Amino acid sequence: VAASERIEALHYDGDVLRALDQTRLPGHEEWLELRDADEVAAAIRRLSIRGAPLIGVAAAYGVAMSAAELDAACATLVAARPTAANLAYAVQRVRTAVLAGGSALEEARAIHAEEAAASDAMARYGADLLAGSRRVLTHCNTGALAAPGRGTALAAVTELFDRGGLERVLACETRPLLQGARLTVWELGRLGIEHELIVDGAAAGLIAAGEVDAVIVGCDRVAANGDVANKVGTYAHALAAKAAGIPFVVVGPCSTIDPETPDGAAIEIEQRDGDEVRGLTGIGPQTPVRNPAFDVTPAALVTALVTESGVARPVNAETVAELLGSVAAA
Amino acid sequence: VAASERIEALHYDGDVLRALDQTRLPGHEEWLELRDADEVAAAIRRLSIRGAPLIGVAAAYGVAMSAAELDAACATLVAARPTAANLAYAVQRVRTAVLAGGSALEEARAIHAEEAAASDAMARYGADLLAGSRRVLTHCNTGALAAPGRGTALAAVTELFDRGGLERVLACETRPLLQGARLTVWELGRLGIEHELIVDGAAAGLIAAGEVDAVIVGCDRVAANGDVANKVGTYAHALAAKAAGIPFVVVGPCSTIDPETPDGAAIEIEQRDGDEVRGLTGIGPQTPVRNPAFDVTPAALVTALVTESGVARPVNAETVAELLGSVAAA
Repeated sequence: VAASERIEALHYDGDVLRALDQTRLPGHEEWLELRDADEVAAAIRRLSIRGAPLIGVAAAYGVAMSAAELDAACATLVAARPTAANLAYAVQRVRTAVLAGGSALEEARAIHAEEAAASDAMARYGADLLAGSRRVLTHCNTGALAAPGRGTALAAVTELFDRGGLERVLACETRPLLQGARLTVWELGRLGIEHELIVDGAAAGLIAAGEVDAVIVGCDRVAANGDVANKVGTYAHALAAKAAGIPFVVVGPCSTIDPETPDGAAIEIEQRDGDEVRGLTGIGPQTPVRNPAFDVTPAALVTALVTESGVARPVNAETVAELLGSVAAA
Repeated sequence: VAASERIEALHYDGDVLRALDQTRLPGHEEWLELRDADEVAAAIRRLSIRGAPLIGVAAAYGVAMSAAELDAACATLVAARPTAANLAYAVQRVRTAVLAGGSALEEARAIHAEEAAASDAMARYGADLLAGSRRVLTHCNTGALAAPGRGTALAAVTELFDRGGLERVLACETRPLLQGARLTVWELGRLGIEHELIVDGAAAGLIAAGEVDAVIVGCDRVAANGDVANKVGTYAHALAAKAAGIPFVVVGPCSTIDPETPDGAAIEIEQRDGDEVRGLTGIGPQTPVRNPAFDVTPAALVTALVTESGVARPVNAETVAELLGSVAAA
């Protein structure tokens, strides 16, 4: 068992969904006990549960626990993070299963197992793609805390490390909520992977200075044309990678691709409370704040999109459709 | 007297250099009393005095106060912020004056007066250039706290506001030390200019989404070919502005241009203590951190370089040399 498999952020015992409270990491390892969709939605909203695939799975269990109030539960869960594609996908799957007379819990467990398996496949494809990269830069948190199994982008980084040759990860702190500083640094420390924490604004300059061989990030929603919504700050890293001629790789399960979203302009960007920005700075409550949680990276800046079904490269409407076709055919 | 002239960050009374302690703003308005070069250098190092032109002027007074130990004082002052061109420029001017038998204090006062006059000229040129921009984005702090007079980039923004038509400033918080959140927001509030605070990583996405008409920043060192070193995070904004087709304007006095630095690759980037990054995040002292204070924006991404002697547009070795030639000729 690789070190990377020691972290399990979510556990459903048939009655209660236990989730590692990621807002308390790394100082405290506290487990939440969630008993219905409202509690799961609240935990997702306040980012106690986060990471595109993990919130999808958590929401799936949320729906399962609240089958009696199905429609309201689904709406509450989807609205908790409007940009997250996996969330809508998982909620819809469990709801459909219930309406077809099936077992909500079986469907939720199936999604959980599929995402865990997807993580391993993404790790392998991603590590193949990154072969030879000694120094990678990542944003936000995309490891075992963000997705069932080993995660998405960080799973590929971990696999690359296990294969040998990876020297160092530059982890962007990821303002405003510091998922990189709090969570990725914690995971990398546990995994024994050399790393350095940087402020988000330092990424572009370090990429331009030749300090990075590849950028690898997760995704929260991929449009049909391959445009990628991910944690705010991602787009600037993609611009810098393009300018420096290094790969910018996006990793996520096919459940993150939404064929109903034609392009990035159609992606709703969640706007979050300004106190998330003010809190850290000690700025008074009267200071106006704009706090978009995500930004959109155009497909043309994405070197490759890594999924459990394979790799789209280049990333465009055709290659994305091929990935989804291979899922539908499976 | 415009509202923007109410802030004076530095005052020399003939014996003591009084400086507004910018690390304590906006919560506390405390004045430091600095009596020799070591004290001035320490205040510059810990960012109590900051902003490229302001540290140049402070250093000039520092040299004046320590003429007796001239060489050591100059070296200490220049080393306090190795990337800052104005610092080296001002120290060298005062030192040269002393060695030529002149008055150190007269030279320091002359630099102070020149930079204050330069601020007004930059404000006018910059506002001319930005005419029609309703929503501008800026990084770090470049107002009356950063330079004698009204500042550099923020002076132009203030002038644009005074002329009418400016609707809103997006102020990047500027990690790690939050000069944007603490200082620019404080200045804009005093000036009555509508503003919103954003995390640095949100800038590129908002620019791409059409929320910004122009980006305007200061500079800490401009190379002979027009490459610009400025506060870390600047380069990503320049990439985003280029991708969106909006102007990226750099404002600074000619004292920031160093003809001895051929290009951006030759600019020494100050590496600062990792605790500046850790402090805010609560990350433990064992976490490795990389903390470059600046990054370099290539001249090709700079729409215009605004100085007190005029505007270089496009920005390249020829137009920068022309600016310096007009200074030398004056």
